[in-house]
Amino acid sequence: MRTIFWDNCVKLIDQTKLPEKFEILECKRVEELAEAIKKLAVRGAPALEAAGAYGIALAAHERDFSSVDEMKEHLKKSAELLASTRPTAVNLFVGIERALNAALKGESVEEIRKLALKEAEKIAEEDVERNKLMGRFGAKLIEDGDTILTICNTGRLATVDWGTALGVIRSAVEEGKRVKVIACETRPLNQGSRLTAWELMQDGIDVTLIADSMAGIVMQRGMVDKVIVGADRIVRDAVFNKIGTYTLAVLAKEHGIPFFVAAPLTTFDWEREAKDVEIEERSKEELIYCHITCKNRLIAPKDVEVFNPAFDATPLKYVSAIITERGVVFPPYEENVPKILKK
Amino acid sequence: MRTIFWDNCVKLIDQTKLPEKFEILECKRVEELAEAIKKLAVRGAPALEAAGAYGIALAAHERDFSSVDEMKEHLKKSAELLASTRPTAVNLFVGIERALNAALKGESVEEIRKLALKEAEKIAEEDVERNKLMGRFGAKLIEDGDTILTICNTGRLATVDWGTALGVIRSAVEEGKRVKVIACETRPLNQGSRLTAWELMQDGIDVTLIADSMAGIVMQRGMVDKVIVGADRIVRDAVFNKIGTYTLAVLAKEHGIPFFVAAPLTTFDWEREAKDVEIEERSKEELIYCHITCKNRLIAPKDVEVFNPAFDATPLKYVSAIITERGVVFPPYEENVPKILKK
Repeated sequence: MRTIFWDNCVKLIDQTKLPEKFEILECKRVEELAEAIKKLAVRGAPALEAAGAYGIALAAHERDFSSVDEMKEHLKKSAELLASTRPTAVNLFVGIERALNAALKGESVEEIRKLALKEAEKIAEEDVERNKLMGRFGAKLIEDGDTILTICNTGRLATVDWGTALGVIRSAVEEGKRVKVIACETRPLNQGSRLTAWELMQDGIDVTLIADSMAGIVMQRGMVDKVIVGADRIVRDAVFNKIGTYTLAVLAKEHGIPFFVAAPLTTFDWEREAKDVEIEERSKEELIYCHITCKNRLIAPKDVEVFNPAFDATPLKYVSAIITERGVVFPPYEENVPKILKK
Repeated sequence: MRTIFWDNCVKLIDQTKLPEKFEILECKRVEELAEAIKKLAVRGAPALEAAGAYGIALAAHERDFSSVDEMKEHLKKSAELLASTRPTAVNLFVGIERALNAALKGESVEEIRKLALKEAEKIAEEDVERNKLMGRFGAKLIEDGDTILTICNTGRLATVDWGTALGVIRSAVEEGKRVKVIACETRPLNQGSRLTAWELMQDGIDVTLIADSMAGIVMQRGMVDKVIVGADRIVRDAVFNKIGTYTLAVLAKEHGIPFFVAAPLTTFDWEREAKDVEIEERSKEELIYCHITCKNRLIAPKDVEVFNPAFDATPLKYVSAIITERGVVFPPYEENVPKILKK
C-alpha cells in the first residue's frame, strides 16, 4: 500500500497514529489535506511532493465550478494554502507547482480535473520508480548477512512507496540477502522508533531499536557492517540530513565502517556549499515535553535554553558513496557528481 | 541543600518529581527508603552510598527493640532489603556495609544508633569533601569563557552535594570563571534534561539543552571547548560511564577537543580490564514508551526488538585526563594511575 494515493479523494496513512494504530486518513477537502500535512500525518520530502500535487487534484475535484476562471482562481488559492503548511519543504512546493501548471493548461472543468490528477499520479509513479532504481543500484553494495545502521525514516512512509535508504535495504532483502537493521530512535521526533521500526516489522525485516547515543557502542562491538542514511540536500561539500547523521558519520569513520547516502538526483543542489545553507532550528517544545506526541509531562525545566537544529551537515569526505536512481557515485565527488547529473 | 540528609529520619530530594516539582521525601521507615531507591527518587553512585548508610541508621532508629540481639537482627535484615533495591549498584552495598559494620560494634541500643548514624554522616561528609577537592583540581583545567559539554547527571543530585563532573564546573564558577554548559538530554532516562539542566539553572549556571545526537553539530561548529563526564567504573583500559559517553569521546577526538573524566578514587577497579566487565542491559520499556515517567503513549512498536545497554566503555586512549580528589592524572595511565592510588 502506498503512503498517499487517490481514491475519489486523497487518502493517506496517518503517521501521527503510528505505531499505536494503523489508520487511513481521508481528505475530501483541501483544508483537510493541509491540516494533515501540518500535523505531520504525512511527511518526508518525496511523500510531500506527491501530497502537494494530489492537493491540487483535490482542489479541482472537491466542488463544482460555475466557470473555468473561477476554477483556476480556486486552484491558485488552494496552492497557496497547501504551500503555507510547511514553509521549508522545497519538495512540497515542487509538487504543488507541477500539478498547478499542468492543470492551468486545461480549458474545461473536466479537462483541468484530468490534467491535475494525471500530473499528481505521474509524480507519485516517478517517485516509486526512482526509489526502486535506487534500491537496485544500492543493493549491490549490501552483502548477505549485513547489519545496517540507519537514522530517521527514509522508507515507504517518507516516500510514496519503497523508500530511499530503507528502499535500498528492501531491494537487498527482495534479492534474497539476509539483512538486519539497527534503527536509531532519532530524537527529538522519534521517526526511527515510531515509523522505521514499525514499517520494517510490517515487512518482516529484522530490526533492533537503539537510542541515538548507542550508535557508538554497537559500532565498537562490531555489530554494524554498513551505515545507510537518506539526505535532504546534497551540496558541493556536504550532505544535509536529519540531525544526528554527522555524529554517525564520524563514528563510522572511526570504526572503518562504510557510510552510504541514498538520495534521488532532485536532492542535489550542486551550485551551493554548506556555508550557504541555513539549518532550520525547531521549537524547544520538542525537547522539554515528554514527547511531542504527548505533552503530559515536562522532562526538562520549562524555561531552559534549548538548541534544536533539525538537520546537520556531513562533509562529503565522510561519505563512502552516494546511491542515486542513475547509479552509485563514488569519490572524487567534484568529478563524478556532475557526470551523473548530466547523464 | 544536600540531596540526602538526616533530620530525625532520612530526607531526600525526590528526583522523580523534577523538574516539575521540588519535593523533599521523608522516609521514616526503611521500607520507604527502599522504595525511594527503587523508583530512582535518589540515584547516582555517591548518593546511593550515603543512602545505603542512612538506611542502616534509619533501621536503628525506626522503632524500639527489646534486646541488642533483636536490634542487630533487624539491622541485618534491613541491610538485605536495602541491597536488593538496585542489584548492580556497588556503591550502595559499600554504604550499607560500612554503616552496618560500624553499628554492629555497639553494645547498647543507644550506642548502635549513634554508631550507625555517625558512620552515615561520615560517608556523606567524605563525599562532599572529595567532590570539593576534585572540583578544585579540575577547575585548573577550565579557562574563563569555556563552554563544556556533559552527559547524564553528575551533579549535586548524583552525590550528597557539589557533584563530580558538575562539581568541577561549580568550582570553576566559584573561582569566578565564566563557564557555559551544554547538557546532553541523555536518553533513554533523560537525566541530563530532567536533572542536570534543573540543578544548573538553580545555581544560575548558563546551560543549554541538546538531544544526544546533536553533540556532533555543536563540536563541528566550534561551540564546545571541553567535554567533562563522570564515571561508574575505571578499569585498566577503559572508563565505564552512562551510555553515550563513548560516542562523545570519539567526537571529541575527531574535533581535537579535550575529553576529561571526573571520578573519585573509589571508582577505580584497576585490577580489571574492559573485557571483564559486563554491561547491564535494561528494559525495553525505556525505549518504547513516550518516557519512563509517562507511559501514556507508545513511541515504538510494543513488540520491537530493543538493545538498551545502560553504560558503555570508553578506551583510555580517548581520555585527556582523569580528575580525582588527589589530583589530575594524565597519560600514560598505566604508570600514573597506580601512583595516585598509592598516595
